[in-house]
Formats: sequence, C-alpha cells, structure tokens
Amino acid sequence: GIKLDMITATCAISCLACILMGALANLPIALAPGMGLNAYFAYTVVGYHGTGKVSYRNALSAVCIEGIIFFVLSVVGLRQWFARMIPVSLKTATASGIGIYLAFIGLQSSAGIGLITSSSATLVELGGCPPEYRDANNVCTAHHMQGGPTWLGVLGLMLIGTMLLYRLKGAILIGILVVAIISWPRPTAVTYFPHTPSGDEAFNFFKKVVTFHPIKNTLAEFHWDLSSGDIWIALITFLYVDILDCTGTMFSMAKFGGYMDDKTQDFEGSSMAFLVDSAAIAIGSTFGSSPVTAFIESGAGIAEGGRTGITTIVTGIMFFIALFFAPIFASFPPWATGPALITVGAMMMQNVLQINWKYIGDGLPAFITIIMIPFGYSIGYGLIAGIGSFIFINSTVFILFKVSRGRIAPPNYEDRDDWVGFVTRGGIKSNIPPWILRLFGKKPATIASPSNNSSEEDLAEKQVAEIV
Amino acid sequence: GIKLDMITATCAISCLACILMGALANLPIALAPGMGLNAYFAYTVVGYHGTGKVSYRNALSAVCIEGIIFFVLSVVGLRQWFARMIPVSLKTATASGIGIYLAFIGLQSSAGIGLITSSSATLVELGGCPPEYRDANNVCTAHHMQGGPTWLGVLGLMLIGTMLLYRLKGAILIGILVVAIISWPRPTAVTYFPHTPSGDEAFNFFKKVVTFHPIKNTLAEFHWDLSSGDIWIALITFLYVDILDCTGTMFSMAKFGGYMDDKTQDFEGSSMAFLVDSAAIAIGSTFGSSPVTAFIESGAGIAEGGRTGITTIVTGIMFFIALFFAPIFASFPPWATGPALITVGAMMMQNVLQINWKYIGDGLPAFITIIMIPFGYSIGYGLIAGIGSFIFINSTVFILFKVSRGRIAPPNYEDRDDWVGFVTRGGIKSNIPPWILRLFGKKPATIASPSNNSSEEDLAEKQVAEIV
Repeated sequence: GIKLDMITATCAISCLACILMGALANLPIALAPGMGLNAYFAYTVVGYHGTGKVSYRNALSAVCIEGIIFFVLSVVGLRQWFARMIPVSLKTATASGIGIYLAFIGLQSSAGIGLITSSSATLVELGGCPPEYRDANNVCTAHHMQGGPTWLGVLGLMLIGTMLLYRLKGAILIGILVVAIISWPRPTAVTYFPHTPSGDEAFNFFKKVVTFHPIKNTLAEFHWDLSSGDIWIALITFLYVDILDCTGTMFSMAKFGGYMDDKTQDFEGSSMAFLVDSAAIAIGSTFGSSPVTAFIESGAGIAEGGRTGITTIVTGIMFFIALFFAPIFASFPPWATGPALITVGAMMMQNVLQINWKYIGDGLPAFITIIMIPFGYSIGYGLIAGIGSFIFINSTVFILFKVSRGRIAPPNYEDRDDWVGFVTRGGIKSNIPPWILRLFGKKPATIASPSNNSSEEDLAEKQVAEIV
Repeated sequence: GIKLDMITATCAISCLACILMGALANLPIALAPGMGLNAYFAYTVVGYHGTGKVSYRNALSAVCIEGIIFFVLSVVGLRQWFARMIPVSLKTATASGIGIYLAFIGLQSSAGIGLITSSSATLVELGGCPPEYRDANNVCTAHHMQGGPTWLGVLGLMLIGTMLLYRLKGAILIGILVVAIISWPRPTAVTYFPHTPSGDEAFNFFKKVVTFHPIKNTLAEFHWDLSSGDIWIALITFLYVDILDCTGTMFSMAKFGGYMDDKTQDFEGSSMAFLVDSAAIAIGSTFGSSPVTAFIESGAGIAEGGRTGITTIVTGIMFFIALFFAPIFASFPPWATGPALITVGAMMMQNVLQINWKYIGDGLPAFITIIMIPFGYSIGYGLIAGIGSFIFINSTVFILFKVSRGRIAPPNYEDRDDWVGFVTRGGIKSNIPPWILRLFGKKPATIASPSNNSSEEDLAEKQVAEIV
C-alpha cells in the first residue's frame, strides 16, 4: 500500500516539477526527489520502519519548511550570490566530477551493469557476477565476470558508443531500448524476469502494461514540531545539501549544454530555476515526498540535444505517462540504463579540460572536488571539500602577499583564475536578481566583465582593489 | 616469526630490485612486491592460514616460473611489441586513471587519511571517523567526520598543496614528516600510539628505533608441481596482471616524468626495465615473495624532481636502511602518507588533457580505462576494459569502412589518433629490441615516424596499406 502510494506521489511531484521548470525557466533540467537526500530521509531521519529519531510526518514538515526557506533565499538573491561566489574552476570541476559519479553509478549493480561490486578490503572490486550470486551487501560470492546481464550492459555501452561516433540521432535511447527488449524474454541467461518468485512477480506486473494506483493513505499530514534537536539537524542537512547539490547540478548542466555565460558565470533563467526548485520542494512535501532536486541524469537529455524547456516538459509528460504505464517503465533493467549513464559520464568528464591546471591554487581544489563527488558519493560533499581547500590555499597566499607587501607570491601567481565573486553591476557591488530590479522599475546594469585587452597585472590589481 | 620474515624478505628484494633498476635501466621507477597481486597471492591462491587450493611453496614456484616466462618475453621483444600496440590514448588514460586510483587509496583508511570508508548501499561513503569507530569492514559506526587523524591528514594535504604552489623543494617529504611527527606524541587525539594494547605494542616497537630480523624460516622451498589446474590459473593470472600492471605503470611514469618519446611511443631503457622487472620477480620468489612490479608510488619521486636511476638507487638504499630502522619506518601513520598520494594523483590525472577527446573511438575507450582503474581497483583491469572497447569500436568502424568502400565513415574520421602499433623500422615491420640487433652487429633502423607534412588522408591510407 504505502510503497505504491510513494511511487504515485514521486511520479506526480516529478511530473509537476518538470513541467514547471520547462514552462517557467525554459531549461533542460529535470527535477525529482533526489537519490542522496531520500536515502538520508528514509534511513537516517525516519529510520527503517520508523525506528529513527524523527517521525515521518515531522520529517515532512521539515521538508516543507526547507522548501520555504529555500524559496525566500532565492527571492532575495542569496542563492544566486552563493552560486556566483563559487570559483569558476570548482564549477567546472563539479561538472567533471558528476561525470565520474554518473559512470560509477552506471557501473554498479543497483542502477547499472553490475561490473563493479563491493569489497570490504578495497571498498570496490571487479564483480560482474550473475545477479543471483550477489549477496545483500553487493558482494559477488562466486562466478565473477560470468554474469549475462553485465556482458549485455557492456554490449549496450559499445553500441551506444559506436552509434554516437556516427552521430546517429537518438543513439542513447536506441541503446537503452535494444538492451531492454533483449532482456524481456524469460528463457534466457540475461532475462530481467527469471523463473523465481520475485521474477514471476515482476513479470506479472510487466504483463499488466497499464495500471493506476491513486494515493489512498493521506501521506502528507504534517506534524509541525520543531522542539527536538534532531528535527533541526534534519532541516539544516536538507537545506545545505539541497543548496549545494542543486546549484552544482544546474551549473554543471549549463556548462555541459553550452549555455553558461562565461562572463557572468551564470546562465539565463537561473533565478527562475532556483525558484521553481524550491517551490517544488515545498509542494512535494504536501505529496509526502522527500526533497526534490535537479537531477544529474538530465545530462542524458542534453547529450541527445535537448537545450530548452521542451526537453523538461517532455520529461514531465513521461512522468505523467509513467503514472499509468508503470509496468513498462519499471521493466527497464538497470543494465539497460547503466550504459547511458557511463556514456553521458564520459561526455561530462571532459569539462576537466577547461580547469586551470597551471595554477595549483585552482587545480588542487578542483581535483579534490572531482574525486570527492564520486568517492564521497555526493555532489554537496565534493563542493564543500573543494570550497574548503580553495579558501585555505588562496587565503594563505593572499595573506602572505599582503603581509609581505607583494614580495611573497607563488612564482606563477599571474596564472590564477579571475574570480568573479565580487563583480560589480553598474559600479556598485550588487547581487540582486535582475527580475527583482525590473519589478521595481529599475534597469539592471550590465555586469562589468574583465576586459580582454587589459593585461593580467591590471586585472590582478583591479581585483585586489575591489576586495580591499 | 613468519610475519617478520616476510617483512625482511620484502625489504630485501625491494632493495635489490630498485638498485638494479636504477643502475641498469637508469629510470626513476621503484620496484617492490605489488599490492594487487600480493593480496591475490595471499587470500585467493594460498588462502587464509593455507586454506586455499594451492600450497605456499607451490605458489612460489609459480611466481618463479612466471618471472622466467616474463624474462623470455622481454628478451624476444614481445613485451615491447605489446607495449607499442597499446593505442596512445589508452597509455595516456592509464596515467590519468592511476592518478585517480592513487587519490582513492590516499582517501581510504588502510593507506590514507580515512576520509572515505565502505558502505554496503553505495560502496563508498564519507567516513572520517576516529580509527576506533571503524569496524572490520571499514565502515564508520559512529562519529562521522570527527576523527582527528582524518583532519590532520586534510591539513597535511593543504600544507603540501600550498608548499607546491610556492615550488618549495621537498614539499611532499616535508608534509609527510610534519604530519608523522605530530602523530608521534601519545597524549593527543591524533596520536598513532593510543593507550590501547595494540597502541602500546606499536609504541614499544617504535621506541626500539633499530632492529634487525634475519630470515630464520627457510621461506623459499619451492614445490615444483604443475599438475593441478589451480596452479595454472594462478600462473596465468600472475603473468597477465603483471604484464599489464607493469607496462601500464612504466609508461605512465614515463609520461608523468616527461621522458616518453612521442614518435616511438616508447622510452629509453624500456627493454632493460622490463628485463630487470622480470628478473626481480624470479629472484624475489627465492626470497619467498609474491611478484615484484613497478610501483605507482614512484610518482611521488618523479613529482619531487626525480628523473634518473639515482632516484631509484636512493629508494633501494632506503629499503636497505628500512631493514634496520623498521621501527621508524613502520611508525609513519597512513594519514601522513595519504596526502602525498592525493597530491601526486592530482598531478598524474592531468594526463587527461592529452587524450584525443574529439574522436569517440579514442575518447570513450580512454574514459573506460580511466574509470575502471580506480573502480576495478587494478591497472590491469582498466587496460583490459580499455583495449577491449577500443578493439570493438574501431574494428566496427574499420570493417564498415572497408565493406562500404569508404562510404560509411564517422563524420570526423580524420580526427582519430595515429596508431603506431604497426610502425616500421627501416621499411620492415620489426619489433626486435635495439639491443638485440646491436648484439648481432646490426644497426637498428630509426623508426619511420609519421611525417607532420603529409595530409591526414595520406596517413590514413598509409596506415590501411600497412595493415592490409
């Protein structure tokens, strides 16, 4: 009962959020309840069968409050300000780290081809065993590299790669479909429906084709109680992970889709995107859903050529269709979609080429961001690690430079990235979103971009002058 | 007894192998019993307390035979031929993947700062708990991100990064020493010698400063018996993992150190390096050691400026000193050396910039190599995955091109890398190492490098002509 309620609720809020994002912000960024925070919501906050420190209804109210705080932060422009403060090398690194993260997910068994499994000694190891030889901890107990589904996934990856090389339209979609259709007949070694109790159950659901499960239990009865410390920890965690995850994802997609404005380090529609996202979090909580966020899987749509809100509206419509054709959508095996994640990962990883590796003060924090996203399994953690190391290294350099009156500086100090965090609008430091200025009848000033003609020295001086 | 015997044997063979490598091949590549194969040797082949299918003495004989086969392959030039056959994008990708692999090791608890720990759901997760809160499976049970050693490791990483930015000589070494010395006093939260039974034991060993443990048990009594299938599996695994690991590591270090010859895709002294490595494997087996291989940690020496065999000879001398000062060397905590691995990883990862991302036939196999090295936890697996996907995609393209008489080709076919696998020497396809030719009084022909003046079309035709 409750499980099917949750599926319906998830599809419904994702559908609504995607259509809003497409229609209002005109961006190819899909929204849905995020994978990191829903695990945190379910296993840490509420706990298995409600054994956690916070009740489900209480946790939901925290989600709703988080969405509202988020919305207010977006309206006053604090989110945009924060997004602009992130150094450009870290934004690029985030896109690159998400690429490796996507590939990592695509290689695992839960949402991928199962080539990589768990190991207590080395954390990860080559698995590739048939699904029935994986234990509860994702460890292959026998028959390593003999799993039909894994090899079918590898074939899917090769097919998608080859089709992309010839620039075939719909390469990723065709690859997913081919592997899924091969996995549907039951009497094969690569079937998604083996002759086991759970296989029978999945196949019976598949055969239904059409189904609809309305939300019967009233999921969203809020319990407004902020008296415990645990609810505050949950609320704050929701808030900062959401801000970092969502900001990181949106900017990475803008970079990947090529619609990032290099001068302002922002993209058109970003303010509206942040507003839609935060509104969707609050609305989602009334459906009983954990926080909605920008999905890194949007990269697959961008890889297929999606650049506008039409992509997102189509995604929303698919979520609506999924409400009724759940049996079909649930029958795409993970080894059919895993290859798409790996290919999109390969594309997004190439952002690494734009990082300023020449200057360690930019390069090392970027590298830390890149590795901490997949290995920390969170975009937020990657950004925190990157921002922290960026501040440590560059504050040290800045202080030494000031104290020594310019005598102590790294040998290639002039190679560092320009930092647009303190860029001015019309001569005045301002981070108010343009639409608010327009609302009050003021024309937003164009952003003073660093001119390409002035020498690096000039720029450095200008920057220091602005900061001091 | 047996444990200290093994430490003495490992130091002794590593010392000998490094000095040979430095003196004969003049390369900054350290040799020691490799981390992947020794785990395979100990846990899979011989098994815990000898519970495996092959006895210790039998497995040792397989190592010795492997070293001899390896030596023969190097003499006849098959290893060099194989090394040259690997597409250039995959060699570059291997160096890049090793960078991420090093950083991954440096982030874990066994040989790093313990920031990343195990998770059954997502394989990896942010850990950072104090060592006493990690269970046997490397999972943090409580106090995430509250571990003193992890934070000290983060500080070490920041120190090394900042010192490298100012190009301080010995930055990596200073960073390791600072963290180690901070970890030696006992009454702190970051001590390597807590007041526990195992901490007391480690501290008592540390206080000895000088010690020497001669090999008492005759470790290396071979048992020459190749009648079981299991010994053959072990032998073949040793052989191919060693070939791939060692080749991949040596070429990556050549790229990292800047002494790779782009024309021949080879480096000076490679033949001798392969001979020394294979000889060290056979000699090592008489000491009772698992296969010796080129160490990716050599990157730390190259990062500090090492370019010749002197670096390796010094490494060998340090192994000799370690025979007597084991108490000191054993007292460098993993969170002191982890930051060095992460920094060197950041440097090696930058090889990614040289990969030919424009052409998917080069770029996707390169990406697969990069991700499969850390996630498959093996350089060999990464290379196999990369080579396999390279062959699949590019054979398909080649066959389609031939069958369609040049009509079906990828839109940017001319962007692909030149493949030097079939390069000719003096007009004749030859892969005999130069020193063998010299031995027989023949002057080795210079390698016909693809001229930069000829058009891409010409090159493609030439290549096709050579292959057919």
